[in-house]
Amino acid sequence: MSAEQDLTMRRAGRADLEEIVRLLAEDQLGATRERAVSPLPEEYVRAFEGIDADPNNELVVACQGGAAGRVVGCLQLTFIPYLTYAGSWRALVEGVRVDASVRSRGYGEAMMRWAVQRAGERGCRMVQLTSNKARKDAIRFYERLGFKASHEGLKLDLGA
Amino acid sequence: MSAEQDLTMRRAGRADLEEIVRLLAEDQLGATRERAVSPLPEEYVRAFEGIDADPNNELVVACQGGAAGRVVGCLQLTFIPYLTYAGSWRALVEGVRVDASVRSRGYGEAMMRWAVQRAGERGCRMVQLTSNKARKDAIRFYERLGFKASHEGLKLDLGA
Repeated sequence: MSAEQDLTMRRAGRADLEEIVRLLAEDQLGATRERAVSPLPEEYVRAFEGIDADPNNELVVACQGGAAGRVVGCLQLTFIPYLTYAGSWRALVEGVRVDASVRSRGYGEAMMRWAVQRAGERGCRMVQLTSNKARKDAIRFYERLGFKASHEGLKLDLGA
Repeated sequence: MSAEQDLTMRRAGRADLEEIVRLLAEDQLGATRERAVSPLPEEYVRAFEGIDADPNNELVVACQGGAAGRVVGCLQLTFIPYLTYAGSWRALVEGVRVDASVRSRGYGEAMMRWAVQRAGERGCRMVQLTSNKARKDAIRFYERLGFKASHEGLKLDLGA
């Protein structure tokens, strides 16, 4: 089966939260900043509720073998109305993760193609994301999908 | 007077829209993609309404000489709830523009310091933005304010 046939993308529910935080914590950079412990810290539950309540945010999981199947990936989409480009919406993608045990099957690409299609359905003119310059493979992956690294991604950490 | 004393930051209203679009179109990169004509294209009005109706988006103008004074700058803030960093909010800054006639007075810095403070009031852990790599002066300006160019800013233009 192709990655597209193998995966079902759906909105994440509260019951998926532990799995999503596990994926975020498994990540090389995420390992130092996430706390995938049980019970899950209350901050994650509050953040999930904030995302879930916002019609312009969608937390999405990729499931193997149907919508009730195993969660093997996640991403978050934020739809933003802007005045620029003669008044257009953009989709911001964040927290794209694929389970390490199912790498190299094209799942990441299938998830991103789904995200781009979803952005189009929401009337977005542009899809954008930032990727840490240390993630060289990820940056090449996005460029293969047609993304242009035209911008610097600048961050000011208020918690540092 | 210092830039901070000289400027009043306030939420933009519908009556400010022509001035904001003028600022966006005056910009070197914006010149090719904005249409600052009268009457204003309907797309801008719809985009403004979308921003104005969203509690997680704030379109802000910088006015000279009080809140009813001349609009000399603009920016947009988007507040986004994320699971990453143990469930934290971020502020995304976009469309930062200062009127060409009032450059080199520290207005841009005063506006950004205000934006960072506003992000803190909204409980954000991080402030982030992307800047076209062609905008070398802008990137240096953000770095002077403490932003780190740690990320690639990747864009996929669905309208291209």
